[in-house]
Amino acid sequence: MTLIKLPEPDQGVIARRDVIVKDLERLVGADVIISDEDGRRAYDTDALTAYTRMPLAVALPRSTDEVATILAYCRDNGIKVVARGAGTSLCGGALPAEDAIVISVSKMSRVLEIDYANRTARVEAGITNLAISGAVAKDGFFYAPDPSSQLACTLAGNLAMNSGGAHCLKYGVTTNNVLGLKIVLMTGEVVEIGGAHLDSEGYDLLGLVVGSEGQFGIVTEATVRILRCAEGARPMLLGFGSSEAAGRCVSAIIASGIIPVAIEFMDKPAIHVCESFAKAGYPLDVEALLIVEVEGSEAEITALLNRIAEIARPYRPETILVSSGADQSAKIWKGRKAAFGAIGRISDYYCMDGTIPLGRLPEVLVAIARICATHGLKVANIFHAGDGNLHPLILYDANDAAQAIRAEEAGAEILKLCVEVGGCLTGEHGVGIEKRDLMTVQFSETDLALQMRIKTVFDPEWLLNPAKVFPLEAPRPLAA
Amino acid sequence: MTLIKLPEPDQGVIARRDVIVKDLERLVGADVIISDEDGRRAYDTDALTAYTRMPLAVALPRSTDEVATILAYCRDNGIKVVARGAGTSLCGGALPAEDAIVISVSKMSRVLEIDYANRTARVEAGITNLAISGAVAKDGFFYAPDPSSQLACTLAGNLAMNSGGAHCLKYGVTTNNVLGLKIVLMTGEVVEIGGAHLDSEGYDLLGLVVGSEGQFGIVTEATVRILRCAEGARPMLLGFGSSEAAGRCVSAIIASGIIPVAIEFMDKPAIHVCESFAKAGYPLDVEALLIVEVEGSEAEITALLNRIAEIARPYRPETILVSSGADQSAKIWKGRKAAFGAIGRISDYYCMDGTIPLGRLPEVLVAIARICATHGLKVANIFHAGDGNLHPLILYDANDAAQAIRAEEAGAEILKLCVEVGGCLTGEHGVGIEKRDLMTVQFSETDLALQMRIKTVFDPEWLLNPAKVFPLEAPRPLAA
Repeated sequence: MTLIKLPEPDQGVIARRDVIVKDLERLVGADVIISDEDGRRAYDTDALTAYTRMPLAVALPRSTDEVATILAYCRDNGIKVVARGAGTSLCGGALPAEDAIVISVSKMSRVLEIDYANRTARVEAGITNLAISGAVAKDGFFYAPDPSSQLACTLAGNLAMNSGGAHCLKYGVTTNNVLGLKIVLMTGEVVEIGGAHLDSEGYDLLGLVVGSEGQFGIVTEATVRILRCAEGARPMLLGFGSSEAAGRCVSAIIASGIIPVAIEFMDKPAIHVCESFAKAGYPLDVEALLIVEVEGSEAEITALLNRIAEIARPYRPETILVSSGADQSAKIWKGRKAAFGAIGRISDYYCMDGTIPLGRLPEVLVAIARICATHGLKVANIFHAGDGNLHPLILYDANDAAQAIRAEEAGAEILKLCVEVGGCLTGEHGVGIEKRDLMTVQFSETDLALQMRIKTVFDPEWLLNPAKVFPLEAPRPLAA
Repeated sequence: MTLIKLPEPDQGVIARRDVIVKDLERLVGADVIISDEDGRRAYDTDALTAYTRMPLAVALPRSTDEVATILAYCRDNGIKVVARGAGTSLCGGALPAEDAIVISVSKMSRVLEIDYANRTARVEAGITNLAISGAVAKDGFFYAPDPSSQLACTLAGNLAMNSGGAHCLKYGVTTNNVLGLKIVLMTGEVVEIGGAHLDSEGYDLLGLVVGSEGQFGIVTEATVRILRCAEGARPMLLGFGSSEAAGRCVSAIIASGIIPVAIEFMDKPAIHVCESFAKAGYPLDVEALLIVEVEGSEAEITALLNRIAEIARPYRPETILVSSGADQSAKIWKGRKAAFGAIGRISDYYCMDGTIPLGRLPEVLVAIARICATHGLKVANIFHAGDGNLHPLILYDANDAAQAIRAEEAGAEILKLCVEVGGCLTGEHGVGIEKRDLMTVQFSETDLALQMRIKTVFDPEWLLNPAKVFPLEAPRPLAA
């Protein structure tokens, strides 16, 4: 995949590498800075592995103060910075640059405070997503957003990309579950935004910063909402003779007013791969499968699942299977959560991430199939159907350069389609380098200019996470 | 109340009034512009009636195009603009200025599109809050945020202030219920933000604009979420021997993980006034009353109310009364929703609006009583307890200038207290002129400078809604 252009690095900065490394070691300690080639190579890509760049150096700060010291130094010396969590970005959001320092917050992973009376937890941003729930699970609480990479990905990355997950249909995405942030600006100034209360004061900088993809500063701490675990939860499987029927069934469930915890969609290729991996009991003869999970008391769960089965009936489900207990539920979710990995074992894939108005789901599924067929490629669909967040996986052979380019072209067409039907370019994976050049499809010149002027407010010299999010050709607004 | 300073108007602009009015009449038609004194007087204040200013002229545009034409003209001629919905702002957010044009969107009140499959409605911003629910009620849907002024207040004002309401405990505030906006910038450019899908693309400009108090542009259209009405809902009354016990009970309900639709709090003075107005059956001998509403099926409602009664038991409720049916429920809510009006019949009052972390509620209630007593003033407390959004009403005599100033002083102390315990200055009423000078209590110089630089991105000449939100002394950043 070579469609995306990356800018030429600043050779002047690269020539000063030794001095810069020495300065940083003096400022924050040699153990915080990685400068040898092997050490840096571990940070040369993220989960969009087709693109790699060796960073100038890597910093692993242990405190907000150290982050502030490094950023102030970089600003004073005109050095670019790439913020990094666990490097699980699927859009190249954490791709380094040869003239940039990578600052990873992965060593800042402590739980600082748990407050059940206010239902909040204050944590360092390098904590993994799952570790937040882990810290409160014994008391029956959890942190809601659950990206598939939750075992590895950090809250810092979730904040940068406004990550979602299967269960966000009911509980919302990251921005709906964060109450406060501590962010270090490029000047080294530390700003606290929001706090342990609902509604943020002043402009909604909290909302603005969540999803800003490392363009505004480096978040080092966050206060997140924790929620009480439901009494119980149970998934059901609904298998259909066509993707269109499954799509119409999703719309009908949502239009009925029921809000399940999750409605996940898999088409036949995805079902087969996931079943062979997880032995979840997925039906193999259907064209499309929905996993619908509801929660509550036993009585509520039963009533809701019965009602959903009723709603599904006009779409002629070939399978209706309610999980028989905790074991089966775990297997059903294991298959879904491991889907990307399972598909990765049989083929290279390019994972798309667009959202659409839910009512357009059936026609969009048909169009995705057509687009991929036109490019001579197979596609597996597996995504959060309930909130209209699509993840078509375009299958291709990475050793075949022509095929790789066709995969990128098909992907771009799919995302343009999402915008055309009234949706958007990215649901939860972010823009990064991947969708940077598609931003002009979504946004007018006025829109983009406005966003870039806001970027300039936070980062007047455009040193933070360079060459991401905005088309390279768009004129950078100058600082005031 | 004269504590808040307003800037001297620009006499040069006032001198050009006749020319400006003629220009505007030529551009958008004479029937859109109000220029006579009687007509303008109807717009000289909002619900913070202690402050009045006669506007230069008033425009009542009928379309986005007309709004754009007026804004472009004002920008080209350096004329300030105050956006207005229904003028129900409690913080002076819509207070005019003698050198500013008021642009009210109240004539733009059409429902443009209702889409049940996507559960959205597209409306003009001048529609009243209640009219949105009215448009979809026949099909069993509603628009969730429900400020007490919902009969009169416009969505435009709700968007400006990020309004909440009694039922926002479960459904969130305005920002959680809006998916897309059309906003006219000061240049006359029209920008569309978000759309009929979850998660906004690019930076979260949608979140940024909601709650920006008319500082960024004029919103003319919005796509809002509509929700399916619950099967049923029922309130219960819980009366306690002290405000502290009631406060502790609220914390216990929330900490249990139950999310009622609403938990409203009234202290004794509020109970008596509201009961004499609404004959709702509120107990008159208790010190504090909670209205707790839950919704769902009959069985769910009964189970939840029983569980809440159990949770309340350690706080020794003197009254536990479950509504017997629709009539009684309506009366119970009528008392609460009419509270401000009912109190206004017996005294002038200054309505505060702060939020606190819920766990601090009991001690904050004690401190509010102490602050008001110190200033020799009575206070009635009536507010959204479930989400920690307080509305103490400080009672005073507006004809007694010294008392009026003491009321403002007590109010400022209460808001500082909210910030001190980790809360914030405003829950849903906004900053406007009222809390402008308290912003330095909440925000550091760095915070404020950042917010003001963002304001400059949208409105480089600072023509929109002047002298609101930011302390007058804070240096205005120049445009790039």
